[in-house]
Amino acid sequence: MTPDPAFPIAEFEARLARLQKGMAAAGLGALLLSTPADIFYVSGFLTRFFESPTRVWFVVVPATGPPVAVIPAIGADLMGQTWLSDIRTWPAPRPEDDGVSLLTETLAGLVPRGGGIGLPMGLESHLRMPLGSFERLKESLGDRVFMPDQGVVAACRAVKSEPEIDRVRASCALAGAAFDRVPEIADPGAPLDQVFRRFQSLLLEEGADWVSYLAGGAGPDGYGDVISPATAQALAFGDVLMLDTGAVRQGYFCDYDRNFSVGGPPSLTTARAHHALWQATEEALAQLRVGMTAADLHRLMAGHLEASGQVPLAGRFGHGLGIQLTEGCSVQPGDQTRLQDGMILTLEPGVEIAPGRILVHEENLVLRADGAELLSPRAAIEMVEI
Amino acid sequence: MTPDPAFPIAEFEARLARLQKGMAAAGLGALLLSTPADIFYVSGFLTRFFESPTRVWFVVVPATGPPVAVIPAIGADLMGQTWLSDIRTWPAPRPEDDGVSLLTETLAGLVPRGGGIGLPMGLESHLRMPLGSFERLKESLGDRVFMPDQGVVAACRAVKSEPEIDRVRASCALAGAAFDRVPEIADPGAPLDQVFRRFQSLLLEEGADWVSYLAGGAGPDGYGDVISPATAQALAFGDVLMLDTGAVRQGYFCDYDRNFSVGGPPSLTTARAHHALWQATEEALAQLRVGMTAADLHRLMAGHLEASGQVPLAGRFGHGLGIQLTEGCSVQPGDQTRLQDGMILTLEPGVEIAPGRILVHEENLVLRADGAELLSPRAAIEMVEI
Repeated sequence: MTPDPAFPIAEFEARLARLQKGMAAAGLGALLLSTPADIFYVSGFLTRFFESPTRVWFVVVPATGPPVAVIPAIGADLMGQTWLSDIRTWPAPRPEDDGVSLLTETLAGLVPRGGGIGLPMGLESHLRMPLGSFERLKESLGDRVFMPDQGVVAACRAVKSEPEIDRVRASCALAGAAFDRVPEIADPGAPLDQVFRRFQSLLLEEGADWVSYLAGGAGPDGYGDVISPATAQALAFGDVLMLDTGAVRQGYFCDYDRNFSVGGPPSLTTARAHHALWQATEEALAQLRVGMTAADLHRLMAGHLEASGQVPLAGRFGHGLGIQLTEGCSVQPGDQTRLQDGMILTLEPGVEIAPGRILVHEENLVLRADGAELLSPRAAIEMVEI
Repeated sequence: MTPDPAFPIAEFEARLARLQKGMAAAGLGALLLSTPADIFYVSGFLTRFFESPTRVWFVVVPATGPPVAVIPAIGADLMGQTWLSDIRTWPAPRPEDDGVSLLTETLAGLVPRGGGIGLPMGLESHLRMPLGSFERLKESLGDRVFMPDQGVVAACRAVKSEPEIDRVRASCALAGAAFDRVPEIADPGAPLDQVFRRFQSLLLEEGADWVSYLAGGAGPDGYGDVISPATAQALAFGDVLMLDTGAVRQGYFCDYDRNFSVGGPPSLTTARAHHALWQATEEALAQLRVGMTAADLHRLMAGHLEASGQVPLAGRFGHGLGIQLTEGCSVQPGDQTRLQDGMILTLEPGVEIAPGRILVHEENLVLRADGAELLSPRAAIEMVEI
């Protein structure tokens, strides 16, 4: 693969404009961002160094004007390569004042007294900062108050730009190339943990920068769950092998799975279930439109599965996707999120074949004005044999 | 590699006993844990599914008796394979009550009115839960209060058991085997991002379950920082290539780097700097003793580097290691942590060779009653040529 072009500065300016528009509507004097995903979204700052919990990182988005980075000195060089020019650092870790005074000073300089500082506080959010430091920050900011961002950050991130869509498409493509090569690495007798290791290598060979997520399972007529790491259990004739990956390229995830039949064709039960999942997905791809809700999309797939005589799994049948493996709406009953042009979604219907044996199928798409555009290479209607 | 044995239940019972002893001393009626590392430490629950921010997970450690898991239903199967037997679930994500009522009920049942519930709130901690949910939890718990855990969790985790040391040793060994093979994957002309991909594959081939961290750099007489992801820049004759990995096996990290001289021997300047770093590490390994402070350890290495005519980098020269890439003390001036038998540490001295060009060397060790035991295979005194 050839290197991807970096995002143009116009991309970040557009994100900032949308955020600030939302902030104005919500009455926020600034936004305080602390997670890798939110910081990357606003700045383009991409590093795996967030794996270390020792240091805290912040980007402050003021009501007007460019974002300000408030970060450990060790990140100054890398942040200096982004479009941000106001980069303030302290020598972290400094337990007695680990960024609190610098953040206080920065926020006090950007937000007038009495102003509100928005924090993502809703579903999927967390504050990546010790609670003890946050308590001190609140005290030291006096009459400026922290308040919920009212979903401003999540709403901006949910609708993707074309450069973002290109990145998810690239991640999907490389995963597709790796899935095509699964027969190279998985035979009857291969221990599942070895299959997992080799599949991650395939993803890297095909262009993933790193593989942040891989789950799966194997068993006759399905698997027990979709979140377990691999055991050393050997693949057996008649097993269904499922691999579900979140490979990352240039900071953007894909998230889809494939099912394989080990050593021969699947059982009739498994083949029927797979077919029903594939058809439910096909219907969703054909019927998905802007303005439908996430709940509508769930109903569409669950209805098809029931009509096919299958038992739909409890839980969600997909979700938003982008900088995080999962983000934004959940394709489940009760989620009334209106689906918009530019949203990237997974379709992830599942069925229970027998008690404790499930089958899950997944694709990735972007919703366009006229319907769904697939981002993952469409799975074959028949389960691939290995 | 053969599969590692699972931790015996006695391992978790011992962890629980230490935690509850610390909790009693701190006057805590329970501990509320929310991060992947803390939950894994107490329960053995290991999954990459934490990569998804959608769901929140909790383990409550009561003052007496076994821990209680309060988790999304999707994790019941996997949590059921751990030593925990009290597993309470809700159908997450459920935006209107995403675990708050179940957690309230659980905590109210375990902690008497007026009791304190400890939360890790110090350096390196965060609460992996939306602030909005936390506010509701605080309100609904009435006269039970959240309070800092006074470092109880961090103190327990900092001192490792023999089974934990074995796991870090295994991670170090597989990374060593991969570092030995770097000449296979890095030649003059190879783009750095390709080297990163191939090195991750080598780590997987040598037994890593996954590669949560890889950073590095390349340039003449050193690199700019140690946290950047790779660019497509090609390795050039005379470059120093540095790779720094946190590979994970069975939930435990290694964290060390190696430097390579591309296309021939290093410059005299680089060779001298590497030699000084190697010798500073050698001295630290020889002189490290239980009861020294992290600051003492820093002074020892920095003093050697200065005496060798080098310019020590600002920042820390190592840190604790285990379930996280970095955890616990920092080897830096001012960190008065007393080093104890069973602590796993990295030694990570660095020097500035020229403005913006640095060289960093790293090893992993466990501190024993009689001194340091290396866990990483010791680097060669001369920089390896590729």
